Amino acid sequence: MELTILGCHSATPRENKHTTSQLLEVGGNLFLIDCGEGTQIQLRKSKVRFSRIQHIFISHLHGDHFYGLIGLISTFRLLGRTAPLHVYGPKGIKEIITLQLKLAKSWTDYPLHFHELEKNTSELIFEDETVQVETLPLDHRVYTNGFLFTTQSTKRKINTEALKEIDLQPFHYQQLQQGTDITLDNGKVLENDAYTLPPSPPMKYAYCSDTAYFEPLVPLIKEVDLLYHEATFLEKNNTLASKTKHSTAKQAAQIAKMANVKQLMVGHFSNRYPNKEDFISEASGIFKNVILAKDLKTFKI
Amino acid sequence: MELTILGCHSATPRENKHTTSQLLEVGGNLFLIDCGEGTQIQLRKSKVRFSRIQHIFISHLHGDHFYGLIGLISTFRLLGRTAPLHVYGPKGIKEIITLQLKLAKSWTDYPLHFHELEKNTSELIFEDETVQVETLPLDHRVYTNGFLFTTQSTKRKINTEALKEIDLQPFHYQQLQQGTDITLDNGKVLENDAYTLPPSPPMKYAYCSDTAYFEPLVPLIKEVDLLYHEATFLEKNNTLASKTKHSTAKQAAQIAKMANVKQLMVGHFSNRYPNKEDFISEASGIFKNVILAKDLKTFKI
Repeated sequence: MELTILGCHSATPRENKHTTSQLLEVGGNLFLIDCGEGTQIQLRKSKVRFSRIQHIFISHLHGDHFYGLIGLISTFRLLGRTAPLHVYGPKGIKEIITLQLKLAKSWTDYPLHFHELEKNTSELIFEDETVQVETLPLDHRVYTNGFLFTTQSTKRKINTEALKEIDLQPFHYQQLQQGTDITLDNGKVLENDAYTLPPSPPMKYAYCSDTAYFEPLVPLIKEVDLLYHEATFLEKNNTLASKTKHSTAKQAAQIAKMANVKQLMVGHFSNRYPNKEDFISEASGIFKNVILAKDLKTFKI
Repeated sequence: MELTILGCHSATPRENKHTTSQLLEVGGNLFLIDCGEGTQIQLRKSKVRFSRIQHIFISHLHGDHFYGLIGLISTFRLLGRTAPLHVYGPKGIKEIITLQLKLAKSWTDYPLHFHELEKNTSELIFEDETVQVETLPLDHRVYTNGFLFTTQSTKRKINTEALKEIDLQPFHYQQLQQGTDITLDNGKVLENDAYTLPPSPPMKYAYCSDTAYFEPLVPLIKEVDLLYHEATFLEKNNTLASKTKHSTAKQAAQIAKMANVKQLMVGHFSNRYPNKEDFISEASGIFKNVILAKDLKTFKI
């Protein structure tokens, strides 16, 4: 998994401070998570071939998380896209986008599928051979979901050491990865267990923004490899955090600790804090392995 | 009049190539004309105090002219705006904006007034003591208006030379500007004509984007001080211009010549042309006084 932060600031975009959007590459898939105004320009800056995006996940319908979506959808059309695009987001998102396309008399030439979300419990919304995506219901001023990405590899790993004296055809390797025994031309049978290792354990990335401190989230994100949890505020503004249903850096760390995640990334910073290191100082008092999101920075998970 | 180009590129925004938006300052008013995605960031870069904007004019509902509007409206709310905001644009613009505010449960705390346009003939849509704004119906794929801004000064100019030996109070100057004769304490009467000069002639700025070559525009923009006319294409792509209802640089120049305008500015450039000077070369064969729009550049009219 590789995560590129396109924007990690809250409320309004400013020069060099972009609102929320992330690009997650996993198993050949390029997923876009949220899409604040100007996301398409951030995608161009990131140099990624963003026409490869086929699935867009929108957490909620506040502008700093989706005002860039209609522009990206329009740009795909102008660039001659033909591949289908799937948009997952709160009920209402289809009406907003299609109304704008209708009034502009500019329907997309590619299939545009909306998957509107309404449930208040976690649900599986996407799955292929390599990854599954589940919602993480959050507690915000409007209906909001985080998203949990879990790799799923059923392929066993080839034990190259055990096989180094044996001459195999490519299809033999595929059979071994699929867990079957193989029979060679000379009649010799290779038992799978002796020549393969168990599949890689699943990798998990949990995206949680925007949300108040919300303990029901904890069991859903147990031991994920990376948790992105919003930390709009510092504790000194915890009343404001509570009022606006956002979290402080301390609260994000508390959730990370309870869920025993491997690493915490905080983001969705309010513009009122000039020194982002204060978020690390506050969170690391509770949960040590914490890092800062940063616009246009790529992280390996 | 002072015109700042916030973006002058067509179709999709790219790094350092912003879609259409302009800021016109006239008689103390700050008018925003069109509002492509990312306009609020361009406004921040321009260093103007953009909370002063009270009137926004949207030419048509293609994304490169209005996808930044909802973001700007939301930002005004987040910045604590209380002053009313007036939005003028095609029928449908109110539904788009209010639907997004409704789904985000974030109504504006300031009065937001929509003035929806439907007429196919020029109409007066705004007027105060210093300026009037009229629509300029254009020929594009969707309902589109340009806008004509005309200063109106009814104040006569003080003839300082004629008055230099006379000791006057401030209110005397106001009376003179209003065209009345004044009576001094000693009973002497100053006849207005002898101490003032006629009001400044009106200044006119015509904004025309997007449009195909459209001769009915000519009588409406006769002898304006500055005509901004779109030139998405060069003549070598005139078939494409015609098909998409855009203009070439040559066609913009033909309109400028027929209308006998004082100066022509071309913009709304297609991304296919790396050298913008080609637009000047093509237009100046027909109309000499032509300049290029440029993002974040300010022009005195």
